[in-house]
Amino acid sequence: MLKNSMQYSHIVLQEIINKGDNVIDATMGNGHDTQFLAKSVGATGHVYAFDIQQDAINHTKDRLTQLDLISQTTLINDSHSKIDNYVSNPISAAIFNLGYLPGNNKSIITHFSTTIPAINSCLRLLKVGGRIAVVCYYGHPGGKDELDHITHYLSQIEQQEFSVLRYEFLNQINQPPILLIIEKK
Amino acid sequence: MLKNSMQYSHIVLQEIINKGDNVIDATMGNGHDTQFLAKSVGATGHVYAFDIQQDAINHTKDRLTQLDLISQTTLINDSHSKIDNYVSNPISAAIFNLGYLPGNNKSIITHFSTTIPAINSCLRLLKVGGRIAVVCYYGHPGGKDELDHITHYLSQIEQQEFSVLRYEFLNQINQPPILLIIEKK
Repeated sequence: MLKNSMQYSHIVLQEIINKGDNVIDATMGNGHDTQFLAKSVGATGHVYAFDIQQDAINHTKDRLTQLDLISQTTLINDSHSKIDNYVSNPISAAIFNLGYLPGNNKSIITHFSTTIPAINSCLRLLKVGGRIAVVCYYGHPGGKDELDHITHYLSQIEQQEFSVLRYEFLNQINQPPILLIIEKK
Repeated sequence: MLKNSMQYSHIVLQEIINKGDNVIDATMGNGHDTQFLAKSVGATGHVYAFDIQQDAINHTKDRLTQLDLISQTTLINDSHSKIDNYVSNPISAAIFNLGYLPGNNKSIITHFSTTIPAINSCLRLLKVGGRIAVVCYYGHPGGKDELDHITHYLSQIEQQEFSVLRYEFLNQINQPPILLIIEKK
């Protein structure tokens, strides 16, 4: 089976993450990606994970503690637009899961006015060969607007410095997420 | 490095082609894809390769003969819109390389009026789990028109029966090809 956007985001990040790397989970949510990243960087690496909702921090803390992955993780209860305040080391990878926290308040959604600055911070921190995966859910109100702004922004970044790939299923009525991958050359 | 559309088309086909399979190269051109397919299906499989230009047949025949891959290949000097006249066995894969034959007459281009019927024939022949890769060059006059028609056509095929993936680099000024992949569920 062809990989869906979420599965493919993990594959393309797994290809370039090494033990000991610093990485960012820009949208912690229920901590699935944080777990994946913490396992990938190992005990000698570090994951900086962001979310504005305390629920996300709590769920992720429980999850990672149970899996003995908490020591290589910093859970940050702040907007991903403030990444620069918390991370200064070069990163090999970052992941964004845009939309709303599943099972939670659907009125709290990500918005391009903060996700684009956050992506921009990650671009500046990214090492050569590093990748950023942006999984865009866009079926909810405001989702298409965010996707369009991010796509426009990424279409114009310097092609000498970055490649931007769009990975999208076309014939699905339920608007599955679209994956954007940025790689630093 | 992220795989370009041509590289990724081979990866997704390689994943599902087995020795002994029947497959189609709908746009033989200079025979690169025919060679790849003939190697993948092995001596017990078969490649049906189409091109309307005699030059393409000649180049590909020379290439495959030198590589000892000609016995598992039928080179057909006819339009890919006539696939039904030549192939009735189920296929596991097909590839299309849309545009014009590199290094040859740029006025002879593929056109949606024949490529869509050809894709449709391949969809009917495709086995469950099989894949069709359509690599769309669209920088030449007429190319964008073909891409738009094919994208529209594939966006509407039955999602219960097929998945359609679009794989595209966004920030490139030289319009690298866009890859469309159809998988039969």
